Amino acid sequence: MSNISISPSQPQPPLPTPSPFSFSVASTRWSSRRPPIHAFNLFLRFLALVLSSASALSLVAPKSSLRKQPTTFRDYPELVYCFVVNILVFVYAAYQLFKGICDIVHRGIFISDMVSDYISLIFDQLAGYLLVSASSVAVPVIQQMNNGNSLWKAAMVSVCMSFASFLVIAFTALLSGYRFCKRIIW
Amino acid sequence: MSNISISPSQPQPPLPTPSPFSFSVASTRWSSRRPPIHAFNLFLRFLALVLSSASALSLVAPKSSLRKQPTTFRDYPELVYCFVVNILVFVYAAYQLFKGICDIVHRGIFISDMVSDYISLIFDQLAGYLLVSASSVAVPVIQQMNNGNSLWKAAMVSVCMSFASFLVIAFTALLSGYRFCKRIIW
Repeated sequence: MSNISISPSQPQPPLPTPSPFSFSVASTRWSSRRPPIHAFNLFLRFLALVLSSASALSLVAPKSSLRKQPTTFRDYPELVYCFVVNILVFVYAAYQLFKGICDIVHRGIFISDMVSDYISLIFDQLAGYLLVSASSVAVPVIQQMNNGNSLWKAAMVSVCMSFASFLVIAFTALLSGYRFCKRIIW
Repeated sequence: MSNISISPSQPQPPLPTPSPFSFSVASTRWSSRRPPIHAFNLFLRFLALVLSSASALSLVAPKSSLRKQPTTFRDYPELVYCFVVNILVFVYAAYQLFKGICDIVHRGIFISDMVSDYISLIFDQLAGYLLVSASSVAVPVIQQMNNGNSLWKAAMVSVCMSFASFLVIAFTALLSGYRFCKRIIW
């Protein structure tokens, strides 16, 4: 407002421009986060979504296809635990995927970046620990089952998918931890 | 130094002096890492050492004290897994404790800070996942055991200690991830 009243020939006072320090920080943060890591992160979220849904579906599938099947996965609490954990991870991965797509389409409309970083840090860790726990618990149950049984095959596929999902989530947990650190350090 | 040779009237070239940014980085890194977080980290390592050794010892104890005990933890592969994981975490916690004490007594003689940060990042994550896996696997075995049995009690104590150790290691994993991020960002 005060600049309007000053004539152009008059020497202008030094303006409070952003320092090179703050500028470089901001540019590094955005350039490193948006195109390459953001797309890679989205891909990992999609992978976790597919793997966890495959793990959950493989447990449900034998029951619906074979009516003569005497036992379902509901008879084994460990497999139910594995199923529930994979459903939870599926929901979480779907949320992260939705959030990532919202960011691309229209930045920041869904949830603020700071809250999202906190959520990612906590829930990635939690999802990783739950998945490794569920996968581990299901292994002794598979060993006790009848080999060649359709439920045995389903449980095998489920545990493998669950473990693969864990590996993906463990990697995204490292990435989200890195992003969180960038936020709290700067 | 270069200011002495250049006459005051001559336009000075931009010198490669340390910027306030890099200076603040160095001071922040050392001041935040040494006294408070270093001591807290050492305390967590000590806690993990105690808890994992307690978990492993509680499984061994009933065998040595009661000779009439028909079954030992070796009859249950899940408990053997829990025992082995806790021994590995004990060894790792002992190494971290030894490294921390070496750093206090005589800085950097044992292992370089960079290598140590990489080791901490990887093995903290690994130890956390192994501990939660071992704790989870042992829970169904305990449910199948005879209640009130001395092995049952031992397994209960072992799983509780193992889970407490997991919580401590999960926290140190966050701290070591933060320290690693500080290193690779700066």
